[in-house]
Amino acid sequence: MIGDIARSYEAQTERQQLDRLDEWVNHYRSFAAEGQCAAYIPALARANPSHLGICIAGPDGIAATSGDTNVSFTMQSISKVISFIAACLHRGVPYVLERVDLEPTGDPFNSMLRLELHKPGKPFNPMINAGAITVASLLPGESPQQKMDSFFSLLENMLGKRPAVNEEVFQSECKTGHRNRALAYYLSETGYLEVEVEHALEVYFKQCSIETNIQDIAMIGLILALDGCHPVSKKQLIPKDIARLTKSLMLTCGMYNASGKFAAFVGLPAKSGVSGGIMALVPPRSRPEALFRDGCGIGIYGPAIDSHGNSVAGVKLLQHIAQNWDLSIF
Amino acid sequence: MIGDIARSYEAQTERQQLDRLDEWVNHYRSFAAEGQCAAYIPALARANPSHLGICIAGPDGIAATSGDTNVSFTMQSISKVISFIAACLHRGVPYVLERVDLEPTGDPFNSMLRLELHKPGKPFNPMINAGAITVASLLPGESPQQKMDSFFSLLENMLGKRPAVNEEVFQSECKTGHRNRALAYYLSETGYLEVEVEHALEVYFKQCSIETNIQDIAMIGLILALDGCHPVSKKQLIPKDIARLTKSLMLTCGMYNASGKFAAFVGLPAKSGVSGGIMALVPPRSRPEALFRDGCGIGIYGPAIDSHGNSVAGVKLLQHIAQNWDLSIF
Amino acid sequence: MIGDIARSYEAQTERQQLDRLDEWVNHYRSFAAEGQCAAYIPALARANPSHLGICIAGPDGIAATSGDTNVSFTMQSISKVISFIAACLHRGVPYVLERVDLEPTGDPFNSMLRLELHKPGKPFNPMINAGAITVASLLPGESPQQKMDSFFSLLENMLGKRPAVNEEVFQSECKTGHRNRALAYYLSETGYLEVEVEHALEVYFKQCSIETNIQDIAMIGLILALDGCHPVSKKQLIPKDIARLTKSLMLTCGMYNASGKFAAFVGLPAKSGVSGGIMALVPPRSRPEALFRDGCGIGIYGPAIDSHGNSVAGVKLLQHIAQNWDLSIF
Amino acid sequence: MIGDIARSYEAQTERQQLDRLDEWVNHYRSFAAEGQCAAYIPALARANPSHLGICIAGPDGIAATSGDTNVSFTMQSISKVISFIAACLHRGVPYVLERVDLEPTGDPFNSMLRLELHKPGKPFNPMINAGAITVASLLPGESPQQKMDSFFSLLENMLGKRPAVNEEVFQSECKTGHRNRALAYYLSETGYLEVEVEHALEVYFKQCSIETNIQDIAMIGLILALDGCHPVSKKQLIPKDIARLTKSLMLTCGMYNASGKFAAFVGLPAKSGVSGGIMALVPPRSRPEALFRDGCGIGIYGPAIDSHGNSVAGVKLLQHIAQNWDLSIF
Repeated sequence: MIGDIARSYEAQTERQQLDRLDEWVNHYRSFAAEGQCAAYIPALARANPSHLGICIAGPDGIAATSGDTNVSFTMQSISKVISFIAACLHRGVPYVLERVDLEPTGDPFNSMLRLELHKPGKPFNPMINAGAITVASLLPGESPQQKMDSFFSLLENMLGKRPAVNEEVFQSECKTGHRNRALAYYLSETGYLEVEVEHALEVYFKQCSIETNIQDIAMIGLILALDGCHPVSKKQLIPKDIARLTKSLMLTCGMYNASGKFAAFVGLPAKSGVSGGIMALVPPRSRPEALFRDGCGIGIYGPAIDSHGNSVAGVKLLQHIAQNWDLSIF
Repeated sequence: MIGDIARSYEAQTERQQLDRLDEWVNHYRSFAAEGQCAAYIPALARANPSHLGICIAGPDGIAATSGDTNVSFTMQSISKVISFIAACLHRGVPYVLERVDLEPTGDPFNSMLRLELHKPGKPFNPMINAGAITVASLLPGESPQQKMDSFFSLLENMLGKRPAVNEEVFQSECKTGHRNRALAYYLSETGYLEVEVEHALEVYFKQCSIETNIQDIAMIGLILALDGCHPVSKKQLIPKDIARLTKSLMLTCGMYNASGKFAAFVGLPAKSGVSGGIMALVPPRSRPEALFRDGCGIGIYGPAIDSHGNSVAGVKLLQHIAQNWDLSIF
Repeated sequence: MIGDIARSYEAQTERQQLDRLDEWVNHYRSFAAEGQCAAYIPALARANPSHLGICIAGPDGIAATSGDTNVSFTMQSISKVISFIAACLHRGVPYVLERVDLEPTGDPFNSMLRLELHKPGKPFNPMINAGAITVASLLPGESPQQKMDSFFSLLENMLGKRPAVNEEVFQSECKTGHRNRALAYYLSETGYLEVEVEHALEVYFKQCSIETNIQDIAMIGLILALDGCHPVSKKQLIPKDIARLTKSLMLTCGMYNASGKFAAFVGLPAKSGVSGGIMALVPPRSRPEALFRDGCGIGIYGPAIDSHGNSVAGVKLLQHIAQNWDLSIF
Repeated sequence: MIGDIARSYEAQTERQQLDRLDEWVNHYRSFAAEGQCAAYIPALARANPSHLGICIAGPDGIAATSGDTNVSFTMQSISKVISFIAACLHRGVPYVLERVDLEPTGDPFNSMLRLELHKPGKPFNPMINAGAITVASLLPGESPQQKMDSFFSLLENMLGKRPAVNEEVFQSECKTGHRNRALAYYLSETGYLEVEVEHALEVYFKQCSIETNIQDIAMIGLILALDGCHPVSKKQLIPKDIARLTKSLMLTCGMYNASGKFAAFVGLPAKSGVSGGIMALVPPRSRPEALFRDGCGIGIYGPAIDSHGNSVAGVKLLQHIAQNWDLSIF
């Protein structure tokens, strides 16, 4: 009985807390003015910079949404998390880690410097472009289509549906991706690519061009928060060790070369993309008074990004939430 | 009643788990052969490479010790954590972060590259030497002695005693520290040092030369695990935000340029030193079946280090423990 | 009369000097063992490493040849000199120098480092691959074929014939040139390439694959020695200012990242290629007792190259000749 | 008789040419506005930026002077040429070249990058600060005073007098030279310095602070032009091989990271200093119609320097002279 009252009181407090989300979203939306939509391809440049939306998914379902919740956007670098997991699932962690390291770099996401500075040129981590292109080449299958199938298959297991590739974005990425081509040819020459450059790039550009939304990325985040277990089916989609590895990688390298500051002031594993998406997650933890003690996934969309490539309003909103609700893993 | 039985059962299981520590220490001790004691100064070179000791401190006191528990060693880079906290306490976080960033680099601890590559040469984080020397210059007080006082004062609050400086080590560091002098003069020229080069270095070399042991660093780790609160006096020695910031920094940058791999396979905030010490910690968390749910600090000593500067046996032991007891924060 | 005797005496001495060439060639041939033939494509790997040949062309014709004088080889990087001249002829020096600098780098020929280190990524000089690919894109004409025509046209003016492209080498370069592709895509992204990447590379790979021999490159060297004037037709094929610019560039950047040492110990403008060719030249100078006072061109072939990419025996032979005959420009 | 007339005609023409110097000096003086006096120490900052003076010394004495001919200034980096020669004289070329390379770098004069990028950190050439500090440590003698003695002794042989050290400049250099201290400590740690850091720096700062003038540096340039032979005493002060080596080094590395462009558009061995001095030279050469066929030394002073560290008006004046009088060595 007392338990019931306590739980009811808790639920009420939680509701009050969640209700503040709208206020926060409205407040942080204005910070988008400090950033700009990615402009290297038309589809991204056309985004509405003042959009800001958030979805929080807990083990029992969507816990809260606020702001612009119905905008779809392309995964961009958030897809690097999925392809890393898919490569580990199919090739095994040791095989993957022979071809890509797990160290943060402090360099911009498209940097080539380290490939030449550190012989033999092993990419430093799977969250920078060099590492992600290498990982794309490791996906199972001979053809780009087969590789995409293994990517989509993992995504389907998590989301219960197969998302579409945005063809316009994919074509634009192909056309403008010369820096990525430079990275890929370099990797090909040093032997890190397992397939032809154009095949690896097709996979990479396609995974970046997958349509998504904040509900989907909150769900993926939640599955990672739950160590790879689907909250509804309870199926272990990703082995715990791969889920843990992935979360550590998100924390140390997920927010481009602002990952250290994000870890310090937000304290959550997260991965951003230049389209303005952020996939974050809260692992279950023991703070008795805390919201989301059983873990949650968070999807955010705010297309105006900063010089690192992270959603300006999105990062500020997440920081506010994490500090107010004491979500940090530290 | 049932609660009592449960607790008693739990305690028994915990005991059984902790009893396995001796076995693990014995097993991993042999991996020291893959490393070597730091040889740049005689006092470190004289260490016994096959030493391996661990101490785990929980909120209720020392929970377990095993192996070579009575060897004293110098703090070396573990002191960087203390001086960063002391600087933040006295100068405020924003002041400190204007002078040192929080980004991991992927470079060796004594690298100068980035200072020149990234104008204006702000050190990338307080855990690499360039950042730590900058932080030493920020400690309150005019003279090196006053700066050391603020360092010692924090340490005394945490440990209830004032540790000694190993004079032989300090003199050796002074004599051989030309790479650190190079860093310090560079930082002085770019304006990041607040005091004269030799004063900053005196503080830095002295903090590195402080005698410590695994019990002490386990205790410091525990206080950080508890968000800055002393487990016995319950005093908040370090504000929660500084403690959290420090823990995130340890996770992203604490194990030199192997921090990413350590986060991936151990998953705990930790800081190592070239003398072979590792200070690690487990924040409280919610896994019901877990050991050390209320958090703990871990002190390890194993003087044979790898090419990154981390204790070979120490890292392997920690990894084994973290995986067996499910200690990862992710 | 006395003049005639003097001239006759001089001629005799010159003959005696030139006769020693055979002895020197035989001596230095053995140093090929310190190097290796380039192995990245089959055609180069098949070369006979103990080959060594030299041809010296003066204003009055071939002055001396020695060793393996009938081996044909591909131009490789020696072609960079020709394409730089052709680009300057057709686009004007200022236009070309807006797109490629004239500074030596100390880096290997295929390095990408500086493109990223020095924003906005202007190639440091036309003798490293990044610069040469940029220059190839500047040749007049829309299509690769038209660009090659302007290259060949200059070559025909100098040699009185149109050399052939070695199709096997060209195909191999195309197939294996991933590092060059990486450079080219990088340059394309930063805006330094005037044509599509594959078109620029086709020109670059083709110019590298042109068949040549020591007589031809001695002739080209001679024309440069004579400030662009053909020794027989007396036509000014290259304006003096472009010839001078080219010679300075050969001196500061022509021998890859050993150019400084070559300038110091040989003291002649020269350009080498990984096939083992060296094109060197002696500008007219005033040492009264000197051989080749009126200038000469020197062609050398010795396919075993050192780690920089220069013919081992060729460099040693040239150094011996330059020091014995006092040919240095300094 | 006809010879006399010819010679007289020639002398007249030469006179007419030299008379144009005043006009050119006046014209190029105005370009000083594009640069600024070095401001890192007061003595340099106080220089009059519109000063411009030139002295040309031929084998028969001063051939021409123009502009501000009586201003004295400190040698700064021009002294690097003298100390390199002194080190080679006393230690032998091979000994010196084991400790410093001869390759141009493309980096700013005070760069540390390459020391870390290229293990084991051998300085790339004696004209950048890292190389010059290393060379200073190689001068014969135990104490800084003895090392300076060997430096002064070479200078006395060339100039017939012992120049003074500007104490104010020396003290300022000592006080502000933190970047040089950083370089020196780095070099000390990698083993390239033969003496203590502060001793090497004392020598280096002192040699930089030596008072000189355009007459003196023209004379030094002339001696190098004459392959080390004093024009009056005919004594061989510097062996020919060391003189040649030095001249090649000036050409490839003497004008900081604008050496390539200077070689291309001026074409003369030269060394500049941040005080605004340029020491250039013309080796004897065979152009029959040329001025200074027997070689000359050129001293220039113009304290407003560009971003590379070279006198703006001085470089432009030299380029104009070299092109008008066809002085290029190429």
